[in-house]
Amino acid sequence: MKKKNKKVNAAILIIGNEILSGRTQDKNITFLANWLNSKCGISINEVRIIPDIEKTIVKNVLDMSRKFNYVFTTGGIGPTHDDITAKSISKSFNVKYEYHDEAFKILENYYGKSKFNEGRRKMAKMPRGSKLIYNPSSAAPGFKIKNVFCLPGVPTILMSMIINCKKYLIKGPKIFSKSINLNTVESKIARDLGNIQKKYSKFVDIGSYPFFKFGKVGVSVVMRSTNIIKINNCEKLIKKMVKNKNIYIH
Amino acid sequence: MKKKNKKVNAAILIIGNEILSGRTQDKNITFLANWLNSKCGISINEVRIIPDIEKTIVKNVLDMSRKFNYVFTTGGIGPTHDDITAKSISKSFNVKYEYHDEAFKILENYYGKSKFNEGRRKMAKMPRGSKLIYNPSSAAPGFKIKNVFCLPGVPTILMSMIINCKKYLIKGPKIFSKSINLNTVESKIARDLGNIQKKYSKFVDIGSYPFFKFGKVGVSVVMRSTNIIKINNCEKLIKKMVKNKNIYIH
Repeated sequence: MKKKNKKVNAAILIIGNEILSGRTQDKNITFLANWLNSKCGISINEVRIIPDIEKTIVKNVLDMSRKFNYVFTTGGIGPTHDDITAKSISKSFNVKYEYHDEAFKILENYYGKSKFNEGRRKMAKMPRGSKLIYNPSSAAPGFKIKNVFCLPGVPTILMSMIINCKKYLIKGPKIFSKSINLNTVESKIARDLGNIQKKYSKFVDIGSYPFFKFGKVGVSVVMRSTNIIKINNCEKLIKKMVKNKNIYIH
Repeated sequence: MKKKNKKVNAAILIIGNEILSGRTQDKNITFLANWLNSKCGISINEVRIIPDIEKTIVKNVLDMSRKFNYVFTTGGIGPTHDDITAKSISKSFNVKYEYHDEAFKILENYYGKSKFNEGRRKMAKMPRGSKLIYNPSSAAPGFKIKNVFCLPGVPTILMSMIINCKKYLIKGPKIFSKSINLNTVESKIARDLGNIQKKYSKFVDIGSYPFFKFGKVGVSVVMRSTNIIKINNCEKLIKKMVKNKNIYIH
């Protein structure tokens, strides 16, 4: 994995009616965001969840592929009629949707010739020019075309494959994050925290998140930046501010 | 709540760096989708998760408000510097961002005049013309402007408020859903299920979802439609198809 000093961003495109209907709780967004952040210094700038409709997939892939350094899609690469991601992405990039020789061999070998039926063969069809993302759990590979990485929707399989995306990615600068948990309510620190954010606007993103735990309320203040020194200085200022207000740190 | 015979759709816009960074697992999408589906006959057609950046919020709200019958935003309506949803939406619709009289009174009454500080007063500022969505848990109301409903990001508070959106919504026809769990793999039923989907393409959406439970693999086939008779007929066809293949239903 090469390294870049400039920030690198990505978007996630979740393709699946089951998430939109509320039937299934997505688990891939959090996993991908954490992995890309911590292992690759890549920030997620947008997520979209869309239905299994060809023209919607075509449009969103193209749009996100233009806007972000990388796009990670999940879902729709299995053997059934509602698995239309690979075909749709071929249309996005106006390339042929065809058997990928190596993917065909991997799957034929995995299932055995006699059991390599139509549905299973479908999983070897991809946009022309795709590179494989190997799948150590259930053989059927994902693929990468241009800056778009196509992964399955089943979280355990996706997790087992993610390491195989790494060689295609250019790493961004490490993203640091620090949290301070305070026994207060947001409105008590809002103005001062806003002033600290203004002071650090170029270097540190400060987020404020109320929480309720064990019947107690509190606020998590989260600082994120590629510059750890700026985070540390910002943390000092916040700690000084809350000390002056007699607010305790959990 | 009025009722409409035509399908009614909505989109969800999650505003929050904490979801994009992977720090927080979103719980609102599943809740909102299930509630809108089951209580209002409203389907979610798209979800976007975006950062706390004004121009990004302005653009996405406008875009989604044009494309869908309703938009539900979550997050960014608290008292701190990173809570910029209300101000941004005022810009989307080119209306003034100002104190809402009733919201101001609710909050002043809740906190008491002496404790109604700047941060708390901010929560009474909304786009001109907003209608309130009352908040039985922590007073600070959400708001509705045009077809956009703005709710907080904290799931328990959002859940307590959702009932107060109902009066503003036009109900769509009830959406029915049935699932069949099969002890098979997708590739064994892919072709036949695809043919059944073709036959019912106008009436029933059929989804196929592999699952892994207690070390066993299986497939959930999910049928969704506003027409329960068509779902029942479709179910019969699927059951006949799997019986012919000696596939058992869990």
